[in-house]
Amino acid sequence: MKILFVGDIVGRAGRQILKEAFMYLDLRSKYDFIIANAENAAGGFGITNKVLDELLQLDIDCLTMGNHTFDKKEGEQVLLHNRVIRPANFPPNVVGSGYGIFSSRAGKVAVVNLLGRIFMQPIDCPFRAFDLLYPEIKKETDIIVVDFHAEATSEKVAFGLYLDGRASAVIGTHTHVPTADIRIFPNKTAYLTDVGMTGSTAGIIGFKKDSIIQKFLTCMPKKFEVEIENPQLQAVSIDIDKDGRAKSIERVFYPEEVFFEGKSHND
Amino acid sequence: MKILFVGDIVGRAGRQILKEAFMYLDLRSKYDFIIANAENAAGGFGITNKVLDELLQLDIDCLTMGNHTFDKKEGEQVLLHNRVIRPANFPPNVVGSGYGIFSSRAGKVAVVNLLGRIFMQPIDCPFRAFDLLYPEIKKETDIIVVDFHAEATSEKVAFGLYLDGRASAVIGTHTHVPTADIRIFPNKTAYLTDVGMTGSTAGIIGFKKDSIIQKFLTCMPKKFEVEIENPQLQAVSIDIDKDGRAKSIERVFYPEEVFFEGKSHND
Amino acid sequence: MKILFVGDIVGRAGRQILKEAFMYLDLRSKYDFIIANAENAAGGFGITNKVLDELLQLDIDCLTMGNHTFDKKEGEQVLLHNRVIRPANFPPNVVGSGYGIFSSRAGKVAVVNLLGRIFMQPIDCPFRAFDLLYPEIKKETDIIVVDFHAEATSEKVAFGLYLDGRASAVIGTHTHVPTADIRIFPNKTAYLTDVGMTGSTAGIIGFKKDSIIQKFLTCMPKKFEVEIENPQLQAVSIDIDKDGRAKSIERVFYPEEVFFEGKSHND
Amino acid sequence: MKILFVGDIVGRAGRQILKEAFMYLDLRSKYDFIIANAENAAGGFGITNKVLDELLQLDIDCLTMGNHTFDKKEGEQVLLHNRVIRPANFPPNVVGSGYGIFSSRAGKVAVVNLLGRIFMQPIDCPFRAFDLLYPEIKKETDIIVVDFHAEATSEKVAFGLYLDGRASAVIGTHTHVPTADIRIFPNKTAYLTDVGMTGSTAGIIGFKKDSIIQKFLTCMPKKFEVEIENPQLQAVSIDIDKDGRAKSIERVFYPEEVFFEGKSHND
Ligand SMILES: [Fe+2]
Ligand SMILES: [Fe+2]
Ligand SMILES: [Fe+2]
Ligand SMILES: [Fe+2]
Ligand SMILES: [Fe+2]
Ligand SMILES: [Fe+2]
Ligand SMILES: [Fe+2]
Ligand SMILES: [Fe+2]
Repeated sequence: MKILFVGDIVGRAGRQILKEAFMYLDLRSKYDFIIANAENAAGGFGITNKVLDELLQLDIDCLTMGNHTFDKKEGEQVLLHNRVIRPANFPPNVVGSGYGIFSSRAGKVAVVNLLGRIFMQPIDCPFRAFDLLYPEIKKETDIIVVDFHAEATSEKVAFGLYLDGRASAVIGTHTHVPTADIRIFPNKTAYLTDVGMTGSTAGIIGFKKDSIIQKFLTCMPKKFEVEIENPQLQAVSIDIDKDGRAKSIERVFYPEEVFFEGKSHND
Repeated sequence: MKILFVGDIVGRAGRQILKEAFMYLDLRSKYDFIIANAENAAGGFGITNKVLDELLQLDIDCLTMGNHTFDKKEGEQVLLHNRVIRPANFPPNVVGSGYGIFSSRAGKVAVVNLLGRIFMQPIDCPFRAFDLLYPEIKKETDIIVVDFHAEATSEKVAFGLYLDGRASAVIGTHTHVPTADIRIFPNKTAYLTDVGMTGSTAGIIGFKKDSIIQKFLTCMPKKFEVEIENPQLQAVSIDIDKDGRAKSIERVFYPEEVFFEGKSHND
Repeated sequence: MKILFVGDIVGRAGRQILKEAFMYLDLRSKYDFIIANAENAAGGFGITNKVLDELLQLDIDCLTMGNHTFDKKEGEQVLLHNRVIRPANFPPNVVGSGYGIFSSRAGKVAVVNLLGRIFMQPIDCPFRAFDLLYPEIKKETDIIVVDFHAEATSEKVAFGLYLDGRASAVIGTHTHVPTADIRIFPNKTAYLTDVGMTGSTAGIIGFKKDSIIQKFLTCMPKKFEVEIENPQLQAVSIDIDKDGRAKSIERVFYPEEVFFEGKSHND
Repeated sequence: MKILFVGDIVGRAGRQILKEAFMYLDLRSKYDFIIANAENAAGGFGITNKVLDELLQLDIDCLTMGNHTFDKKEGEQVLLHNRVIRPANFPPNVVGSGYGIFSSRAGKVAVVNLLGRIFMQPIDCPFRAFDLLYPEIKKETDIIVVDFHAEATSEKVAFGLYLDGRASAVIGTHTHVPTADIRIFPNKTAYLTDVGMTGSTAGIIGFKKDSIIQKFLTCMPKKFEVEIENPQLQAVSIDIDKDGRAKSIERVFYPEEVFFEGKSHND
């Protein structure tokens, strides 16, 4: 099964480049299943019904969330949609589901969303949350993709290794910067510490640089606005066999040339 | 001027692979100047006189430090060596220097070390610390390389853009995971959010995986031991012109094959 | 000189009980100088021009701020008023002043406002910030009162002891819970880890309890509303001699009976 | 039932003054049940078998712990003793018990220990942890005393109110500074944000002041040593009726005169 996993969509710039990528790269026909993190899809913070509609029209199969799940009030309503999941380690009784099992032309696939805890808000243990969900999910399908939305590299790598041999892929989100440690662990779990984001690469993690720099200089709160220049889709393509073992994982950037070694993205 | 910047050397495994890389890649003849972050060089935490000697025998030109500078008691003594610098935004009167100006066969080069503040200990503002040092350094040389030792991607990208046109290169360290956003900013500052580390890639950010995973599972303190399997040098090569403008920046991994797309590093 | 120092005024309930206390306790005639922390005065978060006017009509001599200084956009404008100071360890060039020297019927008094750094946003070192201001202030007056707005008890006690013999009083704010460690340090600096707040004691640190408890239970963001039941003024009275040495420090609660040992405040 | 709850015992100074208080105040005959927090009992960090023996010889009924539970390696062994409990919201399978049910001359009493999460290490939700334990404990006894070991006042007050009517008393520990908000909540739960500590009041939260101040000034790690001057027992006395409803709660300081309003503790 060929799966595309798209990094945090940041605002209008992110949604626009995603739409373009769907068209120009013909993503829908290339991939059996498409997952995208949408925690920053609406103005950089959270998600709304309108943005959900826009993303569903692209025929994305599953939207995952993160620490910004409830930034917009409509977030709670959006979570009722069966294509949208939020971190599974929110307390019980929180609206929405922490995982989904979806059918695709290549078979059933489970997607699990979990939050890290280091440098993040207090939340239930993601390691034990996965342990709890795993037997249930495993009954349904061997193909299990995890969006681990976390900050600290130690926690992310530890989580990936902890799931090695159980999940088909553990893909990190949240930092908005792609990492260069893509690999397949010994027991055939594809892993990447962070897939990056889908939005402007000209600013700072998708936002206009001036107000963020001013915030660091003045220690005063500043309003962050989504940047629109030089948008890029940052994603990974994962190939998984019928038993849920990763065969390959490869980075997908669109356009490819925004980030490339030794050249300015403004040249 | 060709500069090699080596990511956090983690313990014996890191020092060993660095030594190998010096020999097999003939680093000393390829580069005019070699910088390495040594905050984890001694057993994963801090630096000792013995480890300093071992690294200086490789003829490294400048060692930078980070939040682990003073983990070993000898750290204070090591900082008296003129090849070793520690973050410049420690308070005044702290032992050691926050930058150094060194001569090389290709001219003078300044190296500045700074700590980020997001998710890290309280410390002076790195943005203003650089502003203060810059005019002084600029009198001596146009070639300025900054090791920005920080956690949060927002702070790291903001810092890089803030220095764009003033520093020749801003290279992030500390997370021990290399990022895939290498580039040259519009005003010719080479930038990378994190260069990665130099140590075992088989564990978790250079340490044995079992005790780190146990720490996450039990919330009990665990002793971290340096892992030794599958060591890799993670570095960048930066080419800087006489005016201090970056001409190119490229990732250097040795061996290349430990991390590569679609293959397990254990295959 | 008799000084009253009033803990964080939280919203309408806080402003109302303060007004009452001024009248019933005849505060204005009892005290030579009155200081109040106003960082939560407007709806629990920050300050507005309207709230400033309301507080100034009570004839308060000096308003101090904290981490909520800029929560309301008008905060920047309010800081231009010469009776309002904000933490002195904000970066240079931030609007407003970090201390004020005021005249009173009993002589000149200096008020300094500083922020702690443990568990708080990154900011300049409060210890060195005081060292820098001290000689300047000392030229003007020996009577120096410091509002140390901080979270961690270790930092607060350390700061108090560091200023012992230089400041007349170091009064902690921010936690909204009064501490029971009132004392005069050996070198005659009056000290209290936290003076408490001025607002409703029926909720949670001045806010309605339900949404705060829900936040802890659900890990979802909740809007905090100011509670109005059982308001109390929490303050301290400090008596300082002409040389700036504290003669006494005593707690002032109004009404006294809201918090008292062994009785419910709802009895 | 008359219960004495003793704040964090810090090192030798704390153990010594506790021993004195037992003798001079005749604590053992005055109280039906005595609880003491022992997370700092051994050299300021953690607990050892030797220190456990010393405390048990005083005939303390229950020792609670906190974030320093495992600072000493022997901590794990100490937790096997049936008089010692550790926070109940550690993950399952962690050594030790999160609560204990003890008999006393006045009947059965349950003690529960829980950790807060704000500004502390990630751990399970203390609110839900209590909900889970409560029915079990309630079957055994109506008298339930909770040591809530936490930093943030918002979390502590919220937790106290959340337990109002279920616990007999919720006593905060961890900050080492006693708070002045002692009260009984509407549904008869006695509450205090922090009981303080049992140790030297001359230093900083029980430790020698010089190295802590140096740490704040230099941002370098410093070794903390237990201070011994001016030790004080900081505790509360709680009177609970047969149905588990608090009748009174009162502060107990020994000696009384170390902290008192308007006087230096060095006078
Ligand atoms: Fe996020
Ligand atoms: Fe995000
Ligand atoms: Fe580091
Ligand atoms: Fe490091
Ligand atoms: Fe505050
Ligand atoms: Fe406040
Ligand atoms: Fe403690
Ligand atoms: Fe503690």
